[in-house]
Amino acid sequence: MAESEIHLYYKNVTAEVIGDEHGITKKQFADIAAQTQPAIAEVNRQREQGKTPFRDLPLTDEYRTNVERIAAEFQDDCETLVVLGIGGSALGNIAVQTALNPYMYNLDASQRKNSKCPRLFVFDNVDPSQFGSFLNSIEDRLDKTVFNVISKSGRTAETASQFLVIRQMLLDKLGDSALKDRMIATTDANEGTMRKIADASEIRTLVVPDGVGGRFSVLSPVGLLSAAMCGIDIEQLLKGAADMDRRVSQTEFGNNPAAINAGINWHYYNRGKPISVMMPYSYALKDFADWYRQLWAESLGKSNDLSGGKVYVGPTPVKALGTTDQHSQVQLYREGPNDKLFTFLHVDRFDRDVTIGQAPDCAPELEYLAGKSMTKLLNSEKLATEYALLHDKRPCLTVNFDRITPYTVGQFIYLFEVTTSIAGALFHINTYDQPAVELGKEATFALMGRPGFEELAKKIEPVARIDEKFQV
Amino acid sequence: MAESEIHLYYKNVTAEVIGDEHGITKKQFADIAAQTQPAIAEVNRQREQGKTPFRDLPLTDEYRTNVERIAAEFQDDCETLVVLGIGGSALGNIAVQTALNPYMYNLDASQRKNSKCPRLFVFDNVDPSQFGSFLNSIEDRLDKTVFNVISKSGRTAETASQFLVIRQMLLDKLGDSALKDRMIATTDANEGTMRKIADASEIRTLVVPDGVGGRFSVLSPVGLLSAAMCGIDIEQLLKGAADMDRRVSQTEFGNNPAAINAGINWHYYNRGKPISVMMPYSYALKDFADWYRQLWAESLGKSNDLSGGKVYVGPTPVKALGTTDQHSQVQLYREGPNDKLFTFLHVDRFDRDVTIGQAPDCAPELEYLAGKSMTKLLNSEKLATEYALLHDKRPCLTVNFDRITPYTVGQFIYLFEVTTSIAGALFHINTYDQPAVELGKEATFALMGRPGFEELAKKIEPVARIDEKFQV
Repeated sequence: MAESEIHLYYKNVTAEVIGDEHGITKKQFADIAAQTQPAIAEVNRQREQGKTPFRDLPLTDEYRTNVERIAAEFQDDCETLVVLGIGGSALGNIAVQTALNPYMYNLDASQRKNSKCPRLFVFDNVDPSQFGSFLNSIEDRLDKTVFNVISKSGRTAETASQFLVIRQMLLDKLGDSALKDRMIATTDANEGTMRKIADASEIRTLVVPDGVGGRFSVLSPVGLLSAAMCGIDIEQLLKGAADMDRRVSQTEFGNNPAAINAGINWHYYNRGKPISVMMPYSYALKDFADWYRQLWAESLGKSNDLSGGKVYVGPTPVKALGTTDQHSQVQLYREGPNDKLFTFLHVDRFDRDVTIGQAPDCAPELEYLAGKSMTKLLNSEKLATEYALLHDKRPCLTVNFDRITPYTVGQFIYLFEVTTSIAGALFHINTYDQPAVELGKEATFALMGRPGFEELAKKIEPVARIDEKFQV
Repeated sequence: MAESEIHLYYKNVTAEVIGDEHGITKKQFADIAAQTQPAIAEVNRQREQGKTPFRDLPLTDEYRTNVERIAAEFQDDCETLVVLGIGGSALGNIAVQTALNPYMYNLDASQRKNSKCPRLFVFDNVDPSQFGSFLNSIEDRLDKTVFNVISKSGRTAETASQFLVIRQMLLDKLGDSALKDRMIATTDANEGTMRKIADASEIRTLVVPDGVGGRFSVLSPVGLLSAAMCGIDIEQLLKGAADMDRRVSQTEFGNNPAAINAGINWHYYNRGKPISVMMPYSYALKDFADWYRQLWAESLGKSNDLSGGKVYVGPTPVKALGTTDQHSQVQLYREGPNDKLFTFLHVDRFDRDVTIGQAPDCAPELEYLAGKSMTKLLNSEKLATEYALLHDKRPCLTVNFDRITPYTVGQFIYLFEVTTSIAGALFHINTYDQPAVELGKEATFALMGRPGFEELAKKIEPVARIDEKFQV
């Protein structure tokens, strides 16, 4: 595998290209550098203090070895692998699968790397219609299905509910041994509900490393098991991350792609562009825009008390897809408010190309497409869209991939994780917590009748009651 | 089929619930009514003048009859239906399919309405890897595959390219008769590239009605053919829209759900909430959030010259999904800037429910879930999230569905189409054009070497050249 590096290209945010009002001037860029420099140092210090253990995931073989061992144990008898998880316990799995396996992977076994690769489903919801459709489809094939339940605590209502549904189904249909034969739990090493259950039922486990939050966990067993079982080279994924680690640990701003990325994003957030659009020109990378959306929103969407009063900060990440969204969002992106920073993901070469056929005689106006490659068209569309956005002074970043491989995807993951850390330091917020998620969780407990939440249930009651006066 | 109405619920945007700073006071609501009243009249007048023919799509049987005839002709020999289209020629097809057919539809033939229903793929991109994976999978089954190419002009670069790929493949593998046997073109009645090609090759056609823009075309043959072939009751879909037509044509603001919806959205856009989040609590409705995203962005993202200087307007639509995005976006939604209006889609009853199993003895903390339905959990999560957002003074609308049926989905489509029209009138922009899409299209022509675009190609050249100084 060629060791191709991914690169961040940032010329098209400069004043040189889009003018002084919306572009970054040389002086501003120097200011960004001066303010980001200490943020790099802070992030490197946090790592040395052991506060960001996600940083070291690519540097150890331990997790990968465990994952490969478990994968080998289950692979012989698995035609379908089901991940039960939500948020950080699902988005990375989905993104890695979409990026590194063929579009028709689930529908066409001949496109899988080898005959042991199972179909993959990742359920990150509790929709009865969706989940029910799936259950109907596999209830007679449970003995060929493996369930990987991913939850550090085991108490997340969605994952716990899915787990209880599947557990009951396995016990009812296959008997007591089914749990250990058909399930793998990825959970806390020592404590919590899922750890207790796994130990009591002899369910084999993988570990969610301590101190690694869900949204930073894709390179841990959380994200690696489904990848390994589906034939993805996780060693190369980790190697890509490890190699990016060297680049994003550089103390010099100008050499550090994560620092430049974070600094530019932070600059624009503070100057009337609170929306950050990630737009891959690659179907394979589309779910990484969704993964990024969690990483960015949950890490940076925080209130901050540093300036005296309470200030709400946080760019809103938006996922888009080229060329598809040219026919949906680009009208707004060009002619709507100039309140967005665009980050394109560009791929030089795809694993497969398609040649456009001849034009019919009656349609010479299509002659210009005939014989060209779809890669050329897709990449021309990216450049064309960027050109049109720049024409209207909209700032554009690009992450350039030579190819999409486990190695480059590993780099991408790590680049954006550390970008998020540095951006968090610039925003002066705690990048790694998510306090605002709690109230909704508790309200769910209250509405589901969990003991101890009766007072909260009373408070919610007025919201739950439809007031006909406001219904039309 | 019970004729259940969908409803808009707007109590949770009022000052009564979230306070005067972010909520709508009674006086403001009266102002919104006063300003929206003439917008309703304007929209009704446009219709009478024949300027918005999309409004009459549900009132005629002609398109449906043609669609049903073509569907019947092709259905006997079709195991896979492929839509080639982009933007408005794809998003509606995808949304209707996700909403009204089971999650496992493509993977499990037993879940289709009858044995004639084909698998459905909608390709709205020119990604060589994605499209190539699909081509590899069907190249030996072309005689059982039907392609519905949808393009009014036939010159959209993406759809034209896909078409030329498939055309060549059909001719090479199945010979000259393959085009008329395996293709259906949905295009202009009289003119354009696709009309010429269809006529020359005897490809059967359906008509894109004049004056109906892509994003308003889902209830025309554009959206109806794939639905009909996949077993969806398109008569009920149209009936839902026709019944909603009566409600959204009401001249009295307080009785008109589209007017109230538009007025509230417009109010918040003008008061520091330029982001509009649509968050279905239903996997089936998730692609309607994407459909809405085009409808809203392309219709309302416009510059406007009315106030002297050029003003860029347009809310940014964001799609989200409950409960999934509670574990991704809700941290930002609650604790980030209060710059968003939320529209939830809520469903009372699903076509299938799932019962949560018993908790293991070692985990009594999960007892509260045992025996409950997933519907109850999903809907409790919606209410819990809304409660948490209201706690932080974030305005929330809800569209309530009794059930998801063709009839209610038809209502929903029409409600949001007319909401968009009324919002466009409030913003004083042309809702139905998309001028800012042109430059990107032309730049693509230039980069692909289409004759006549040489000057533009020269202008793009500097953007296309990577300047190493800005690459890291």
